[in-house]
Amino acid sequence: MESEFLDWLRQRLPASPLAELGLVDDAAMLRWHDRSDLMATVDVLTDGVDFRLDEVDPRRAGRKALAVNLSDAAAMACRPVAALVGLVVPRIGGLRLAQEIYEGLLPLAERYGVTIAGGDTNSWDGPLVISITLLAQATPRGPLRRSGAVVGDMIVVTGAFGGSILGRHLDFEPRVHEALLLHERYELHAGIDTSDGLSLDLARVAAASGCGAELDLARVPVAPAAHELAQKQVDGNSALDHALADGEDFELILAVPPEEARRMQREQPLGVPLAIVGQFIAEPGLWQVDAGGRRDQLVPRGYEH
Amino acid sequence: MESEFLDWLRQRLPASPLAELGLVDDAAMLRWHDRSDLMATVDVLTDGVDFRLDEVDPRRAGRKALAVNLSDAAAMACRPVAALVGLVVPRIGGLRLAQEIYEGLLPLAERYGVTIAGGDTNSWDGPLVISITLLAQATPRGPLRRSGAVVGDMIVVTGAFGGSILGRHLDFEPRVHEALLLHERYELHAGIDTSDGLSLDLARVAAASGCGAELDLARVPVAPAAHELAQKQVDGNSALDHALADGEDFELILAVPPEEARRMQREQPLGVPLAIVGQFIAEPGLWQVDAGGRRDQLVPRGYEH
Repeated sequence: MESEFLDWLRQRLPASPLAELGLVDDAAMLRWHDRSDLMATVDVLTDGVDFRLDEVDPRRAGRKALAVNLSDAAAMACRPVAALVGLVVPRIGGLRLAQEIYEGLLPLAERYGVTIAGGDTNSWDGPLVISITLLAQATPRGPLRRSGAVVGDMIVVTGAFGGSILGRHLDFEPRVHEALLLHERYELHAGIDTSDGLSLDLARVAAASGCGAELDLARVPVAPAAHELAQKQVDGNSALDHALADGEDFELILAVPPEEARRMQREQPLGVPLAIVGQFIAEPGLWQVDAGGRRDQLVPRGYEH
Repeated sequence: MESEFLDWLRQRLPASPLAELGLVDDAAMLRWHDRSDLMATVDVLTDGVDFRLDEVDPRRAGRKALAVNLSDAAAMACRPVAALVGLVVPRIGGLRLAQEIYEGLLPLAERYGVTIAGGDTNSWDGPLVISITLLAQATPRGPLRRSGAVVGDMIVVTGAFGGSILGRHLDFEPRVHEALLLHERYELHAGIDTSDGLSLDLARVAAASGCGAELDLARVPVAPAAHELAQKQVDGNSALDHALADGEDFELILAVPPEEARRMQREQPLGVPLAIVGQFIAEPGLWQVDAGGRRDQLVPRGYEH
């Protein structure tokens, strides 16, 4: 529903001298004291959609709610600063549940230097809702955008893809430190976090940048969980299919000039692997080159809100 | 539930050099570029608690969700800047509903110069949830606090109280312009908006300021809706009872030095009436003086979250 809704909304929002709206990027940049370095983003997570409280510890749900926001800050290479936490909890057991949500998110907030700057906790007869707003600050190099990829840029990704539903979608580490380090040491043209799936999020960077992208399938890092899912044969998808289309990997996709990308790959400056998986091209759309060199259109797949 | 929960939470949040936490005031103040003028607040509203979609137009619900946040900015005499809107809508009819929510809040945002800086819209099988985060900026005079009332200050209120459930709780005008104007032209010591009830919110200002408050019952402005409710005799409460204890008036309670308060009352600088309804006193607690001069303890009543 979200893309249709955003189209409708874009036509109704007045142009703002203050904000570059978060309708294209993962978050909005706001001007404060004449500097456009205030990043703001909100994510709402619900029981039954983003986690299932009948299966997981509420602490993991709370942790995830903050982590997805931190991943938005990572996507734009901004430094997380403060979070506001809106909770709606069921009347029965709500106090304990609210405490567990905080017990899950507070250690993550502390690790990333995030102040819990406010909150609103309510109870009702419905299921748990966690709404987190994150404020972050762009570094002097400015925020990283989706729209900056240039034809010829390499597609660089962190980590590995697919099968996050087996657990990583709850316990992933947002790539905040990685994004800040790369943005400081290398020239990055564009970035996004893979919340909805490698192929879908890559297609978004290409579209926002007015170019296409060619993915080298043999180079896509496939997560062990993607292999595990493929072996279970629940839906006939291969491990690579899962890597391309599963959502919630929360890794980074970066557009990097070729020499910088090669330097990155050589230096491997992160604790997590960096891989070059293709390049941005003039021809619009998403393309794949398979192990045998065959070139085909790649239909972006992933989680559509 | 919220006060018990906040006690628990206060003990767990690390002290932050960055933020004065929003656990006492209506919102948090954050430092940005070395100035502590960034106010942030979040309010989550739900169908069945804050409004009933089977009775009201969704536009009024959307309007209210932004208005309660604007009222928090008014409470601290800050200038609203930007809002982030998190929505969870039922799957059936969700797109139209999300549009109607925005149709309700966008005109209010425009009137108060608020940029919609971001959003997250999701669907699920539960009822509507609206979570709005508001960012506002303190003026050069700084934010107005709950804790600044001084013994001898007059209790000044805007508007009239009680019976908001008959409709005003949806359609009230947040006292943003009024708070900014008063904060600029007069010396104000403390402020709050009456979200939970005149007596309860007044008791909060007194407690935060380390003093008591004495309310002159004959001077409390009673709203027509409070008389209407009393006439219906649904719960045996008088119109004054409603004025003292009904929540969601969203008027201002201010602590003002006596000469300033008298000047205010004389000048009546607002489009809405200003009234002196009592004073802050050294004796702790909340006290009432009735029309006959009888003095009694006044038990704070209102909406406890």
